[in-house]
Amino acid sequence: MSCARLLFFYYYYTYIDMSSTSTLKVGIVGASGYAGEDLARLIIGHPGVELAVVTSRQYDGKEFGSVYPRFAQFPKIQGLKFTNPEPEEIKSQVDLVFLAVPHGVATEYARPLLNAGIRVIDLSADFRLKSAAVYQDYYGAEHSDPELLEKSVYGLPERNREAIRKAQLVACPGCYPTSILIPTLPLLERKLIRPDTIIANSLSGVSGAGRKVALDFLFVECNESMRAYGVPRHRHISEIEQEMNGVISGEQKACIQFIPHLIPVSRGIHTTLYLDPNPALGSGDQFDEKAFLSSVESAWKEAYVNDPFVRVLNQFDDNRLPDTKNVLQSQFIDIAWKWDPRTQRLLGFSVIDNLTRGTSGQAVQCMNLMLGLDETMGLF
Amino acid sequence: MSCARLLFFYYYYTYIDMSSTSTLKVGIVGASGYAGEDLARLIIGHPGVELAVVTSRQYDGKEFGSVYPRFAQFPKIQGLKFTNPEPEEIKSQVDLVFLAVPHGVATEYARPLLNAGIRVIDLSADFRLKSAAVYQDYYGAEHSDPELLEKSVYGLPERNREAIRKAQLVACPGCYPTSILIPTLPLLERKLIRPDTIIANSLSGVSGAGRKVALDFLFVECNESMRAYGVPRHRHISEIEQEMNGVISGEQKACIQFIPHLIPVSRGIHTTLYLDPNPALGSGDQFDEKAFLSSVESAWKEAYVNDPFVRVLNQFDDNRLPDTKNVLQSQFIDIAWKWDPRTQRLLGFSVIDNLTRGTSGQAVQCMNLMLGLDETMGLF
Amino acid sequence: MSCARLLFFYYYYTYIDMSSTSTLKVGIVGASGYAGEDLARLIIGHPGVELAVVTSRQYDGKEFGSVYPRFAQFPKIQGLKFTNPEPEEIKSQVDLVFLAVPHGVATEYARPLLNAGIRVIDLSADFRLKSAAVYQDYYGAEHSDPELLEKSVYGLPERNREAIRKAQLVACPGCYPTSILIPTLPLLERKLIRPDTIIANSLSGVSGAGRKVALDFLFVECNESMRAYGVPRHRHISEIEQEMNGVISGEQKACIQFIPHLIPVSRGIHTTLYLDPNPALGSGDQFDEKAFLSSVESAWKEAYVNDPFVRVLNQFDDNRLPDTKNVLQSQFIDIAWKWDPRTQRLLGFSVIDNLTRGTSGQAVQCMNLMLGLDETMGLF
Amino acid sequence: MSCARLLFFYYYYTYIDMSSTSTLKVGIVGASGYAGEDLARLIIGHPGVELAVVTSRQYDGKEFGSVYPRFAQFPKIQGLKFTNPEPEEIKSQVDLVFLAVPHGVATEYARPLLNAGIRVIDLSADFRLKSAAVYQDYYGAEHSDPELLEKSVYGLPERNREAIRKAQLVACPGCYPTSILIPTLPLLERKLIRPDTIIANSLSGVSGAGRKVALDFLFVECNESMRAYGVPRHRHISEIEQEMNGVISGEQKACIQFIPHLIPVSRGIHTTLYLDPNPALGSGDQFDEKAFLSSVESAWKEAYVNDPFVRVLNQFDDNRLPDTKNVLQSQFIDIAWKWDPRTQRLLGFSVIDNLTRGTSGQAVQCMNLMLGLDETMGLF
Repeated sequence: MSCARLLFFYYYYTYIDMSSTSTLKVGIVGASGYAGEDLARLIIGHPGVELAVVTSRQYDGKEFGSVYPRFAQFPKIQGLKFTNPEPEEIKSQVDLVFLAVPHGVATEYARPLLNAGIRVIDLSADFRLKSAAVYQDYYGAEHSDPELLEKSVYGLPERNREAIRKAQLVACPGCYPTSILIPTLPLLERKLIRPDTIIANSLSGVSGAGRKVALDFLFVECNESMRAYGVPRHRHISEIEQEMNGVISGEQKACIQFIPHLIPVSRGIHTTLYLDPNPALGSGDQFDEKAFLSSVESAWKEAYVNDPFVRVLNQFDDNRLPDTKNVLQSQFIDIAWKWDPRTQRLLGFSVIDNLTRGTSGQAVQCMNLMLGLDETMGLF
Repeated sequence: MSCARLLFFYYYYTYIDMSSTSTLKVGIVGASGYAGEDLARLIIGHPGVELAVVTSRQYDGKEFGSVYPRFAQFPKIQGLKFTNPEPEEIKSQVDLVFLAVPHGVATEYARPLLNAGIRVIDLSADFRLKSAAVYQDYYGAEHSDPELLEKSVYGLPERNREAIRKAQLVACPGCYPTSILIPTLPLLERKLIRPDTIIANSLSGVSGAGRKVALDFLFVECNESMRAYGVPRHRHISEIEQEMNGVISGEQKACIQFIPHLIPVSRGIHTTLYLDPNPALGSGDQFDEKAFLSSVESAWKEAYVNDPFVRVLNQFDDNRLPDTKNVLQSQFIDIAWKWDPRTQRLLGFSVIDNLTRGTSGQAVQCMNLMLGLDETMGLF
Repeated sequence: MSCARLLFFYYYYTYIDMSSTSTLKVGIVGASGYAGEDLARLIIGHPGVELAVVTSRQYDGKEFGSVYPRFAQFPKIQGLKFTNPEPEEIKSQVDLVFLAVPHGVATEYARPLLNAGIRVIDLSADFRLKSAAVYQDYYGAEHSDPELLEKSVYGLPERNREAIRKAQLVACPGCYPTSILIPTLPLLERKLIRPDTIIANSLSGVSGAGRKVALDFLFVECNESMRAYGVPRHRHISEIEQEMNGVISGEQKACIQFIPHLIPVSRGIHTTLYLDPNPALGSGDQFDEKAFLSSVESAWKEAYVNDPFVRVLNQFDDNRLPDTKNVLQSQFIDIAWKWDPRTQRLLGFSVIDNLTRGTSGQAVQCMNLMLGLDETMGLF
Repeated sequence: MSCARLLFFYYYYTYIDMSSTSTLKVGIVGASGYAGEDLARLIIGHPGVELAVVTSRQYDGKEFGSVYPRFAQFPKIQGLKFTNPEPEEIKSQVDLVFLAVPHGVATEYARPLLNAGIRVIDLSADFRLKSAAVYQDYYGAEHSDPELLEKSVYGLPERNREAIRKAQLVACPGCYPTSILIPTLPLLERKLIRPDTIIANSLSGVSGAGRKVALDFLFVECNESMRAYGVPRHRHISEIEQEMNGVISGEQKACIQFIPHLIPVSRGIHTTLYLDPNPALGSGDQFDEKAFLSSVESAWKEAYVNDPFVRVLNQFDDNRLPDTKNVLQSQFIDIAWKWDPRTQRLLGFSVIDNLTRGTSGQAVQCMNLMLGLDETMGLF
């Protein structure tokens, strides 16, 4: 065995032995839903951090592995129990906290944690919007801590890497917005497509509805069923348009038509985008199709050349379209485009795992950035 | 027991006893796929016709119930065996024949059957298009009997009831076209929507791919998977545009953007339609939203008030959106619309069973019309 | 058109026209679960009876088709609304009532309905057991009307045809018991197998759990999951052993090992039976394998030769094993056996649709018998 | 940041940088099926080995990530291409080879690789049986290299840890045998149960059939379907009985009744075991139920107290039964038992992921042992 390998193993085990005293420590507040469970999966498998605190009112005192049978007997969480601590207590125990509680509730936790000097990554919708008015408009309630809206950073690593590194409060993007913004932002930024006629037709697995015990999400109601919902004004529209408007200038505003559908799979989002070329590029004979498509190709390439988790399928094979099964439990987003010469429309496709890339994986990538770890650690 | 009831039962049994000699008789050519199987289901349960002939090269001589275990021991098909007859032989045995063979093959069978005086309902794509040139363009092969294209009637009962009654050759519409044409034709006819910006985003169960033994349709490849396919120029676009152009006049032509997706359900199609109001109705302040929506409502009501299998969900409940599970194994098409005031777009939704309404049920409704039976017989 | 056919159509329409005044009328009490819904499907499609009353406290006053979207616009139930009547009121409206309420509740309804002279078919477990003590032992509560236990008839048509015809109160068998009793009773009756070592390993679709809104039955919890439950003493054991003991005489008693499993399908039960030949037939060299198997074959043949809904697959093909997909939405039970010469065990297999054959279809077959209709009416 | 952490990160990155020159290297022969794909998933995520060679005749020359889209852009396999080398060439490239080819084919590869001094882990059935006669009996063909049967080690880590460490050729157990042997061997060894009346009723996901393109495994054929197969003499019986006989002494031999069923999930095996207490422990009043159950508990505890991947659910909660969803993509096997006082039978339950614990994970655990790595490396 080579010297380097020996050294590696020496430190591999050293690391494990010392993990309880010196690793970075994180906590999850409210880990009883599907997003919280998937986040736990990633943190437990992460070589650079330790899951030190999991809080829950409901499960206070119970072993983590007894509440989540799939994690029973995992060496890295032996003895880990749910607690229900005050923010002050958490402060001494962790370097960073994930909030995996419903929107509305996250606001209650964020302020005291931040005040205690703990960095926070919120998985809910509470800190994604910059405008308290838009929040109220879409979420139907006054925002209880609008000051934090200014301080929070929208946690889309491909777009806000530097801001995330320094952030005290990161708001993880919604699952649908992630699948829509990654393919469209580079095109909007370069004025290649119209911002006011974008149509996003999305399909989501049932875990997107959370672990809510409701008739609509029973196996028999979902199996062999396909249906649209949240029409015409799903809440995610607010953050999609906010982020789009952030990259376009001038008088035009983004206006997105977004229709989600419930599909009988556990995980996955598939988004189909109908995009019109920017009229400023000319129409009819004036429109240079070849130049446009070349710009589209460059736009994605330039935007994501250094992003480990964006796969532009056209670079592998022009006929391959994204399939959700290829991104399940991963941080990847697979995107592809096709041009339709008949309709003169650019068709975009993206797939993600709504729980991982759409929530927990995104949160871990943000955490890696915030803690100065390798951005991809624990995500391959 | 009342006299009427007694009489009923007398003739109920009389009917059964005499069924082998006097009922209308039909045959199915090529019944080995999912559409053929579903058609057999409907014919066997139909009180007015008898399944007298099933042909198959592959199964020649085998009992129908041994090839399709679900039909074993059905009294109405006791002893029915697959045969492989010449058209002349079929002539003496049936009043009408269904062709359930792949496109390209249907043409071979249709001419000799028609020549023999047998009425034909074709489930393939061979006789849906009026133009041999469009056929060649979309199906990649010269049509081998273009003369029949003129004679065939497009078998959408809600639109072509009278023509179907008299037809010798009916071409059953494709499954996707059915889900798209029913909601859009009344709107196009009344000039309520633009014909050149229609977007149809469709989701289909795996039986839509037929009983094809291919890697892509294995359980493990489809389960927990969602993917688009046939982009950007699925063959069904040809018949959709043909039928749309048939109801609009003037210079404008239908131009449809159609993207189908494969979803892990066995049966069902869900179509989401993105529709722009006709610009002639005015835009901005000029556009009378209320009047427009009232016209939409009337258009569907007028168009389908006498159609037993079209359910306009808005008439029941304005918040109900179609769900494929409510139409499985039925001839119903459930449709609904929503208006989006933000985007000024009319959103349409429809669901069908791709095998029943999309193929076999449609064929049976056409058969009922052709044979002078009650249009709904065997379909409830 | 032949004379006979004309007459048929005359009475076909006559029948429909007069259906509201002269057909037999039935009611369903408590039709809000999956079994009630499937029963409604069969009654609506039944040519000999009319669904005249549907009662529900929850839905009192609502249209049937608005509560069950799949039945909206069905001609035969136009205008049918849920009511919440007293038994006396129901008396004048129906010839027979189905109780589709949970066990424990059925007892409340049965007595007043029977007192009012209405024949009752109960789908719950309340009247299946002859012994109030066994009921209390398995269902954990005292039976509130033990007198009715004596009067009720166990509604397995293949076994109790004559008794069902005359019964005032029929208790439909449980779904699992149906799948287990049909294949085993003829073998027990003929002393071919040991009654005290029977093992029944059953798999059930999720609809078997009813429309209960509970975490365990959410799509995400059931999908990609397989698990046993109700171990070791599922309630259905009580009726299985009661019926088995009814066909064996002497000192030996049936003792069944029964383990059900939850499988991610909506419908279907698959039962695998492990059966030991009766030791009285000899063992080792004394045991005449060939004679035994011939007796097994005859036993099933004799028992079910006149039963339209029992399919013995060995009669079609010795290598075919039952598959639930072939019996979905039907009244069929497919059974097959294999002999294992290594273990000297008889292996039995059966499949049913837990909702149809396991509940609603069984109820309709009983109804046909009770009302003097053809036994199979409405079931093919 | 602490010193230890700094050191860790130093070597974490050092390790990555040097991985191409000094890590242990492995190859996969024939990686085009589901087992091969899952093995690649584990190897790519493994911190101690590098996937240096993937061979395939079909894909020779293609990028690994283009054949398996889910692995596209994984840093650790950048540039990895399928090759089709001679054994001699492989020798210089890897420390160990996995054979993921069908049974019958594995024999062709094993001998030249072993001759070249390469250690081999075979995932097929070719080297599991010690007797060439039994192989021929169950697999229907003469074994082409019976000498290797003696040299191979049955790769069940919990049973053969030391032998695996030293083995040149490891035969990974079948998926069903793994789920059956882990719970039963400790009981047989301690003479707690009868070896000749064991019944194993197993349920498997469709990936167990491999990536075989056959009608039976199409989505529509498997969805909403449950069926038994391989009755009465599935090939896995041979290795199950061989391993059982290895732990029991005396005249009695294991005789197992094993019936597998195909269930519409992608992954997972659920096994239900019907076990009779050893008659030597007494029967009737002589049988000490309490002592027996205490011995069962101890047997499992003693057998697996040091095994990281066996979870005895009774130790967590006596009412919890195994659910396949808790072991998906993991090396865990969850087992539980229940006693049935009515039937005096011990009921056993186990769940595994048929691909991971049933194939690829088992292979990786064996590899870890063979290469002197931590046994659990890459498996949590």
